[in-house]
Amino acid sequence: MIYFDNAATTAPCAAAVKAAESMFENYGNPSSLHRLGLTASQAVSSARKIVARSIAADESEIFFTSGATESNNTAIFGAAKSIGRHKKKIVTSAVEHPSAAKCCDLLADNGFEVVRIPPAEDMARQFISAVDNDTCLCVCMLCNNETGAFLPVSDIFRAVKKKYPRVHTHCDAVQAYLKIPLRADRLFADTISLSGHKVHALKGIGVLYAKKGVHIPPLLYGGGQEKGMRSGTESVPLIAAMGAAVEQLCTDIDDRYRRVGGLSEHLRSRCLAEGITLNSPDGASPYVNSIALAGYRSEVLLHFLESREIFVSSGSACSKGKKSGVLAQFGVPDTLADSTLRISFCADNTITEIDEFIDALKAAKQELLSAAK
Amino acid sequence: MIYFDNAATTAPCAAAVKAAESMFENYGNPSSLHRLGLTASQAVSSARKIVARSIAADESEIFFTSGATESNNTAIFGAAKSIGRHKKKIVTSAVEHPSAAKCCDLLADNGFEVVRIPPAEDMARQFISAVDNDTCLCVCMLCNNETGAFLPVSDIFRAVKKKYPRVHTHCDAVQAYLKIPLRADRLFADTISLSGHKVHALKGIGVLYAKKGVHIPPLLYGGGQEKGMRSGTESVPLIAAMGAAVEQLCTDIDDRYRRVGGLSEHLRSRCLAEGITLNSPDGASPYVNSIALAGYRSEVLLHFLESREIFVSSGSACSKGKKSGVLAQFGVPDTLADSTLRISFCADNTITEIDEFIDALKAAKQELLSAAK
Repeated sequence: MIYFDNAATTAPCAAAVKAAESMFENYGNPSSLHRLGLTASQAVSSARKIVARSIAADESEIFFTSGATESNNTAIFGAAKSIGRHKKKIVTSAVEHPSAAKCCDLLADNGFEVVRIPPAEDMARQFISAVDNDTCLCVCMLCNNETGAFLPVSDIFRAVKKKYPRVHTHCDAVQAYLKIPLRADRLFADTISLSGHKVHALKGIGVLYAKKGVHIPPLLYGGGQEKGMRSGTESVPLIAAMGAAVEQLCTDIDDRYRRVGGLSEHLRSRCLAEGITLNSPDGASPYVNSIALAGYRSEVLLHFLESREIFVSSGSACSKGKKSGVLAQFGVPDTLADSTLRISFCADNTITEIDEFIDALKAAKQELLSAAK
Repeated sequence: MIYFDNAATTAPCAAAVKAAESMFENYGNPSSLHRLGLTASQAVSSARKIVARSIAADESEIFFTSGATESNNTAIFGAAKSIGRHKKKIVTSAVEHPSAAKCCDLLADNGFEVVRIPPAEDMARQFISAVDNDTCLCVCMLCNNETGAFLPVSDIFRAVKKKYPRVHTHCDAVQAYLKIPLRADRLFADTISLSGHKVHALKGIGVLYAKKGVHIPPLLYGGGQEKGMRSGTESVPLIAAMGAAVEQLCTDIDDRYRRVGGLSEHLRSRCLAEGITLNSPDGASPYVNSIALAGYRSEVLLHFLESREIFVSSGSACSKGKKSGVLAQFGVPDTLADSTLRISFCADNTITEIDEFIDALKAAKQELLSAAK
């Protein structure tokens, strides 16, 4: 099996699985006052420390959620609620993940003005100049999930914070986390979203970083877990698994980046040689490669590839094959968007797998062409 | 080890663990269009069928969430948003779990009138007569988490729906689920909350039942998973685990109730013989037993018991030892509330364990008394 759909979800690593399983046995409720509760609570706290360290944050700034969708919703709705009473403008990139974009859509339906900045050359300048005295919130992802493009979050948020320190800055860093070194303070973000299942942990766990001193109301009310920021019994096994996965991945980020960089270069040069279009812009993350085979429909290609045990994505997994409009923002024409495949790597992928993939694409061209005749 | 804290959380059953582990291997994203995605998506769908069957609901009425806290928040805030624009009254029991009670508190801060009905003899009558033309929402739990008291949800909601069919009725059924037979239609609830980790599945998974035709806005926006009702990549391992646990528990509910009934009777009669007060009212669930040892502080007793490997709760785990006010609603005076232990069973507990527990309590009396001298 060749798995090239790591931007959709990753295989849980052995350490994550082991950590989760150990908390199946140590099943206490972290809120229980007895030793079983304490053991669970310590597992949560130790995972929190690891995650905090991985983005050079303080553990008091790390809140576990059910995933990046909840983190994005909490940050965006929370900031809109707390700052947006009198200030009604939101500035965001035009290529956010649906879990951020849809929140902005809903706020737009409720009286907010939402300005969406395309990921163009002068994006940072455009974004910064769109922010004004009436702005409550800036939302910008760090690495785009469909093309791998890095957005200039640091530049934008630094400038915004300098001029408008009270504007809330939120960054969805899901596709960048543990792929490039990340320091919370250097992003100038008040809140940051991270996901577990994109970094070889498990589905159903995420993190919301909230900078010290930043107060947003919670999305979930109840028992007051996570210092009142996120009520609900903590999913101890998933939290422990995230801690274990992060601990493993946070040490050799640059090495892995180089290795995956080599894979991506190989993929891109072989694509060019075969007349396959690259949608991903220059300088994009090597982990996410968007390519297009003009004249062939993504879904047909995807199913042809899976018949050869090669698993890729047509667009992003999040929109279940529906066109998201994000590729258009990156200048990909509609005809090519329909022929797009997303090849997303993890460090375990190999050059041989890429060659097999290219061979399969060549076979697809042949077979699908002759089938069409 | 004697574990009597099953109302806080339960030990995952072998079937749940096995199901989760199998989805660690089948790690596809249910939204991916290829076979790995399909396998994951089928696991979700098969768990959904099992949960639906367990409350005689249709699978289209079952939505997976990150837990009962999220389910309660979604239902209460959703109903308030959709019906509460013009109708500003909420009628609820005075003994809801914090994840429901705190939502009502917040709505009260935002212009809603919240009427709280105590769990008295004539609760149903009082509750029903509090509902009027201005009411948007009724919230009533089925089985109280601190005392095991059953509340007359069916009677209340039936009468409310008859007179005010557009009032939203929400039931937190967490402590009753799989402990008594439950049919969604017989509760006359528009929405019902269920939890995984209280029924030997895992922490981080819950269910929101929403009756066909009932539309409430989601709490989480994004990729549109769960038919748009709850966005975010599905926690496939936890969902599969919940399916497996429910499948196992849903067949012999009455048998288990009888068995645990025997445990509870034994506990209660031994308590009476030892001069220990029963806080739980007559007819309460045998799974949750609230007792008080006048003159001894709950926490001191709890730690004494844990030194003998017996694990109980002081109040409910959700409030981390803080007084919730719920016991007072059940007529327990403050002095006894401070001496309260919650003994919550699962079907694996035994008469011998109860006898050991009573012996330990007797020893506690002796030792703590002489320590005080």
